[in-house]
Amino acid sequence: MIKINNNINIAIVGLGQIGIYLYNELNTKKREIEKKTGKRINIVAISAKNINKKRRFNINKNIFFSNPLDILKKKKIDILFESIGKSDGISKKIVENALKKKINVITPNKALIAKHGDQLARLAEKNKVNLEFEASVAGGIPILKTIKEGLATNKINKVYGILNGTTNYILSEMENSNETFDKVLKKAQKLGYAEPGNPKLDLNGFDAFAKIRILSALSFNTKISKSKCIMEGIENIKLEDIKIANQLDLRVKLLGISEIIDGQLFETVHPCLVSKNTYIGNVNGVMNAVITEGEPVGESILQGEGAGPGPTSSSLLSDLLSILRGNTKYPFGISSNKRKKIKPFNNDNYTNSLYLRFNVKDKQGVLSLITNRLAKYKISVKRIIQTPDKKSKKATIVIITHKTSEINARNCLSIFKKNRNILKFPTLIRLYN
Amino acid sequence: MIKINNNINIAIVGLGQIGIYLYNELNTKKREIEKKTGKRINIVAISAKNINKKRRFNINKNIFFSNPLDILKKKKIDILFESIGKSDGISKKIVENALKKKINVITPNKALIAKHGDQLARLAEKNKVNLEFEASVAGGIPILKTIKEGLATNKINKVYGILNGTTNYILSEMENSNETFDKVLKKAQKLGYAEPGNPKLDLNGFDAFAKIRILSALSFNTKISKSKCIMEGIENIKLEDIKIANQLDLRVKLLGISEIIDGQLFETVHPCLVSKNTYIGNVNGVMNAVITEGEPVGESILQGEGAGPGPTSSSLLSDLLSILRGNTKYPFGISSNKRKKIKPFNNDNYTNSLYLRFNVKDKQGVLSLITNRLAKYKISVKRIIQTPDKKSKKATIVIITHKTSEINARNCLSIFKKNRNILKFPTLIRLYN
Repeated sequence: MIKINNNINIAIVGLGQIGIYLYNELNTKKREIEKKTGKRINIVAISAKNINKKRRFNINKNIFFSNPLDILKKKKIDILFESIGKSDGISKKIVENALKKKINVITPNKALIAKHGDQLARLAEKNKVNLEFEASVAGGIPILKTIKEGLATNKINKVYGILNGTTNYILSEMENSNETFDKVLKKAQKLGYAEPGNPKLDLNGFDAFAKIRILSALSFNTKISKSKCIMEGIENIKLEDIKIANQLDLRVKLLGISEIIDGQLFETVHPCLVSKNTYIGNVNGVMNAVITEGEPVGESILQGEGAGPGPTSSSLLSDLLSILRGNTKYPFGISSNKRKKIKPFNNDNYTNSLYLRFNVKDKQGVLSLITNRLAKYKISVKRIIQTPDKKSKKATIVIITHKTSEINARNCLSIFKKNRNILKFPTLIRLYN
Repeated sequence: MIKINNNINIAIVGLGQIGIYLYNELNTKKREIEKKTGKRINIVAISAKNINKKRRFNINKNIFFSNPLDILKKKKIDILFESIGKSDGISKKIVENALKKKINVITPNKALIAKHGDQLARLAEKNKVNLEFEASVAGGIPILKTIKEGLATNKINKVYGILNGTTNYILSEMENSNETFDKVLKKAQKLGYAEPGNPKLDLNGFDAFAKIRILSALSFNTKISKSKCIMEGIENIKLEDIKIANQLDLRVKLLGISEIIDGQLFETVHPCLVSKNTYIGNVNGVMNAVITEGEPVGESILQGEGAGPGPTSSSLLSDLLSILRGNTKYPFGISSNKRKKIKPFNNDNYTNSLYLRFNVKDKQGVLSLITNRLAKYKISVKRIIQTPDKKSKKATIVIITHKTSEINARNCLSIFKKNRNILKFPTLIRLYN
């Protein structure tokens, strides 16, 4: 158990959208936190790049540090919030130094935890302090606590869901407004749902992937895996695909999936076609949802707002309360030396039904060229929709296949890279079953 | 913090469906629990009415006690599971005596907690032991932990959901199979979803209501309320209503709702008509779902299997782990003397759109009798569907109204008790907005 006085000194490093909101919440909820835990919190140090930046809430400049490392030298800190958000550099340095000085750390930084979580957890355990990161996955949804505590004695075999609000908003909004990816992305940036400068880490699946790595480690009691996985974002999803999906009673969702298959770990993030009649097909807009399948509990679903300072700060404060109540916890639920390494599943053997969209010249023999090629690789066809465009002498061919493996699909499709009747390499979206 | 040795003695009182499943889980998961907590558990005493009853798993008769109170006299117990399930009598007595002897108690008994939770929580706090009851609400869904910890610093204004798997199964199955309430109830009993003897407490809303009382206390940091509330079950829902709802793109769901309105507490359980396009309209079968609305987190949804020994035992074991990890907790999240009493909202002022189904004689003037009466009470009509049955000279009139208060509706409808053209007092189902 952590020895903690009744007066708790807090530092916040990073005053971006999240950090500044947290700063205000801690100040306004002081009394309530004291009522719930008997501890009086005080923010005694803050740090950011620019002291004078215009912020949503005013800061106390008397406690401002330009160099966050100075905080550890000059102040007695009990709990440090890291909300800079880098996977390395100063984010890693300040967290490491704090843990070494027996300071509890709370962070929403998924990139840091997905990359260095194992090392940092060992450091926290060695120094008998807490490292909490509830806010790193699915914003306000307390999914990590649920796995670590609420479902603690279940054997979880699979955890998956919609883990990125930005991409889910874009896909929903393309369907609702009938507008292109680029237009909707601009709208998302305006509304604050996507990073104004570089939204790449959301769009290419990287953000969701970091969350999947963390979820796997917690669900399966394993080390964070480092293996190469299938990671695809939504950058190549066209309005055309959304419309065709709609006609087929399907919807495109960016899913993160982690599963134990034959004792091996399979992790992936890619767009999926899901039925409109399923639960996951109806999680729209900026909502996130995480689904766990465990024994004996069965299927559990948690849904909530996945991003934004409000939900994130709700999770940061729940971590704070947990520490103030004196609950020591292993960062990943069990002691680091009991977390096993696990062999990765071979991605080539991942099997799915596929949606393939071809842009072709509207000529005799093109369809049979495609179907013969599929037949050669024993990929059987469930459905074909051919839409000719007489004017341009082009056609769109959409094929839904029965299940086939990644490697088989890759080999089969390779030929279409250089065929003068196939105008573009086909768009592939996996169906989720 | 509770002082707890490395060897933990456990007693289970009550070996019904839940108790016997728990008994087996504890035996089979001993090692895993030791790995996660460093504590070795031993079941040293069990008790039930009948030692020789045929059970799903064999029991160790050497540790069987006919009188559970003898366990406390003869054995050193660290943690006691109460799974008898009565609101008073031996359930209350054994829990009280255990807490007084500084024994931690874990129970799935919602009737007990909803009735005596305040008193038992004080007793637990006084004796510095834990009283945990995660399994009392929504089976395997860790909703109580989520409110107490995951959403701890949010201001929750409303909590509602589908809290009873039996009734949700019956309503879903009536829609799917087109069968009457009585037939589907028998099916539910066969499948083990409804009590074979007396399913009344599920059907009349009592079970869901006990859960709502517990959720309110946790969400709003208040004492468990004792006020008289609107509690209606599904016994009066006819297949006819399900069919008409279906035509209107609505579905009947038994909802439990708890809300702070103007600083007052409003709690209710009653059937609701919900849109098929909403989240809650798609929680079907034995699934439960709990939705919280909080600041700053927004809307959070937890869905999972709400009943049955597997999910229940998942929650019981999560309580066990929490105790073994040495986390002392106030049973209701904060200290009993900080939980406030709250004034009840006046039920008469509860307002809803209403679905009214009249069985009438198919005569001129009957419809205008009804609409005039509604107009007199300023209840405006959104929709009327009149279906005559020429043969029997009867007709069904369904009216969807705009919003009106409970008292106004009651006064307005009172006249229809004794009118020879109105064959039965109208069926009323509230619309959920």
